Amino acid sequence: MSQSSIIFEDLDPPKRLLMGPGPVDVYPSVLEALSKPMLGQFDPQFTEYMNQVMVLFRQVFRTENEWTLLIDGTSRAAIEACLVSMIEPGDRVLVPRFGRFGFLLSEISKRCGAEVITLDAEWGTVFEPDQIADALKSHAPKYVTMVHGDTSTTMAQPLEEIGPLCREAGTILHIDACATLGGNPLEVDDWQLDVVTAGLQKCMSGPPGSAPTTFNDRVAEIVSNRKHIEAGIRPDGFENADGPCISSNYFDLSMLMDYWSPSRLNHHTEATSMLYAARECARVILSEGLEQVFKRHRSVNAALRAGLEAMELKLFGEAKYRMANVTGVVIPDGVDGEAVRRDMLNDFGIEIGTSFGPLHGKIWRIGSMGHVCRQEHVLRCLDTLTTVLQRNGASTPSHVGVDTAENCFGADK
Amino acid sequence: MSQSSIIFEDLDPPKRLLMGPGPVDVYPSVLEALSKPMLGQFDPQFTEYMNQVMVLFRQVFRTENEWTLLIDGTSRAAIEACLVSMIEPGDRVLVPRFGRFGFLLSEISKRCGAEVITLDAEWGTVFEPDQIADALKSHAPKYVTMVHGDTSTTMAQPLEEIGPLCREAGTILHIDACATLGGNPLEVDDWQLDVVTAGLQKCMSGPPGSAPTTFNDRVAEIVSNRKHIEAGIRPDGFENADGPCISSNYFDLSMLMDYWSPSRLNHHTEATSMLYAARECARVILSEGLEQVFKRHRSVNAALRAGLEAMELKLFGEAKYRMANVTGVVIPDGVDGEAVRRDMLNDFGIEIGTSFGPLHGKIWRIGSMGHVCRQEHVLRCLDTLTTVLQRNGASTPSHVGVDTAENCFGADK
Repeated sequence: MSQSSIIFEDLDPPKRLLMGPGPVDVYPSVLEALSKPMLGQFDPQFTEYMNQVMVLFRQVFRTENEWTLLIDGTSRAAIEACLVSMIEPGDRVLVPRFGRFGFLLSEISKRCGAEVITLDAEWGTVFEPDQIADALKSHAPKYVTMVHGDTSTTMAQPLEEIGPLCREAGTILHIDACATLGGNPLEVDDWQLDVVTAGLQKCMSGPPGSAPTTFNDRVAEIVSNRKHIEAGIRPDGFENADGPCISSNYFDLSMLMDYWSPSRLNHHTEATSMLYAARECARVILSEGLEQVFKRHRSVNAALRAGLEAMELKLFGEAKYRMANVTGVVIPDGVDGEAVRRDMLNDFGIEIGTSFGPLHGKIWRIGSMGHVCRQEHVLRCLDTLTTVLQRNGASTPSHVGVDTAENCFGADK
Repeated sequence: MSQSSIIFEDLDPPKRLLMGPGPVDVYPSVLEALSKPMLGQFDPQFTEYMNQVMVLFRQVFRTENEWTLLIDGTSRAAIEACLVSMIEPGDRVLVPRFGRFGFLLSEISKRCGAEVITLDAEWGTVFEPDQIADALKSHAPKYVTMVHGDTSTTMAQPLEEIGPLCREAGTILHIDACATLGGNPLEVDDWQLDVVTAGLQKCMSGPPGSAPTTFNDRVAEIVSNRKHIEAGIRPDGFENADGPCISSNYFDLSMLMDYWSPSRLNHHTEATSMLYAARECARVILSEGLEQVFKRHRSVNAALRAGLEAMELKLFGEAKYRMANVTGVVIPDGVDGEAVRRDMLNDFGIEIGTSFGPLHGKIWRIGSMGHVCRQEHVLRCLDTLTTVLQRNGASTPSHVGVDTAENCFGADK
């Protein structure tokens, strides 16, 4: 060992129970997948794994879309890849926002040079289809981009009617399903969603850093019309050498399509370990069965909520629009929300979430998703929260949270 | 299990010996690090790991730069993050190119809206400092971006004199050190390199998908002047709400600086497992000692080359500019280069590399780097290559490749 180097201790993260809005604990078989040896990026076994990932995520997204692949980055990387590949400067983009991640979509659209029209719903609510229909009529946007489930408010926007409205208006619809995929029903084809981006670190229960993405032929056509091939690997006779160009190289979907299709034209080096993880996340969820996974998220989080309400805590937002996997809990008057979170984490190893912007300091966000979404974790969380609230001066009654949640599980069996 | 799901078999990648230009086999302790459990992104232990990563990579890059962090993507993601955060449309960028990855730099610069001036060296050579000095004088570029070691040609550009030339000209110098970091000497501060980007999957012997990056205060000032904060998390009173803006959100270095500094302003969710891997890669290399690591790469690859030449194979490019970790080998007349690669991989589990553009079908690229860079692998590769060449009709002499290389190792002991 070099004398002068500082190398710190061996990696040994403390065991947490992650019950915030994500990232969450990873399925054990996903951790195992992460530790498998590398393959070359054009090794036949590796390109076979890439193809399998496409097949697996078509099932998770419930789509026939050929273009179902991973973006190598966290979920906002996939959002940016899709928006920057589609939007030309001056294109009109409608962004209905009902939380912090809606702001992210308008922010990214603006950076892509779009003329951005925003529509704002009060945090804790969602949009009625009529509101979207009216905005489509008034503004005739080329694109609509919106969040499915916005963890900042814990609300999920029903999309069944939004897709057909956009299709009818000739508008391309992008949905950010990062926080809902794999835990809340999402029907890409049935709901006529043109392009959907997600992440692994929420209900998919994988590590952050790889972003499953699917888009249909309407989107593929738009990005293909903007296609550009790097001079260093450009085939002879390729025409659009100096034509219109997507402003990002890394996020250029037309090049990613070449990389993920049999032509296998070199682009980035696919993130091997993250692809292994993504593959395993999809396998775990499909093995359990999507409907069963949705049911588990719904019933486990319903028990959690019943327990929280029995503890005389108020839940945030409109009940019928709540995401299946995360709940906003109003911090009781006189309680220091950050002190409670600190005690939960430091003394009991349980992470619950804080919140952003107008809700900062007003609500906690408690999630139960993926591998974490099961009875024992809910009971442990409620029990600990009771103790910690009492120690922080709240008048929370003992036992009722756990008892109430446990009864829900009993009733569900 | 759901009846209708296709879930494929358990992940079980065949064991390869990766002796191409990268990705390469990963250090065993890095695979272990990848399988550790998640932490929340603002967990004190996780932010401590982020800080440790900064300290570790400052040592690997040999820099005092505060801004030494990871970009969550493959190495071209880091290139794009730095260029898009610095370049304003119309800025003049000089790109001296001596291989395929130089083309990538001009491609990305152009997409950022730069006025791109290219300077081309014949593949297999590099630039003389005078050529760069002349171009700096003629074009007065705001930025120079160039590759340190271009795996497409296996040449490494000496940089000791380029940095001071750029500094003197008032030009910001970006270096893509993806293929050299951790195996070839690289002195970020001593050589006056303003911004350097890399990857894990070459000499660092980690998985692709995380990109170590360092930049000095000159670069920090440029990107800070273009700073913009998302409306959803913008503090009251922040001024530049509608001012100049970096065209990417994901790659906005000014926001990444906030995320990687004590203010910890939320941006993306850091890729937990990849950060664990990056941390471990740096620890392994610093534990061995950088000078020892460089020496190992130099001597192991020298032995490989001696063996290849003893086998009557011709090496590509100017010998004195060769990268320490990868060698271009001219495919002998009458030998089907792809058939040899296929047999090496399918029959013997060894991957060697093909090549791009003008060199496609003309050279193989044989690497020995990171965990792969040791005697047993070189001997195994040479032995197998001898057998496979003979079986593919070449008149390669038996044994001399292995014997010659082994003598080199002996002499080195």
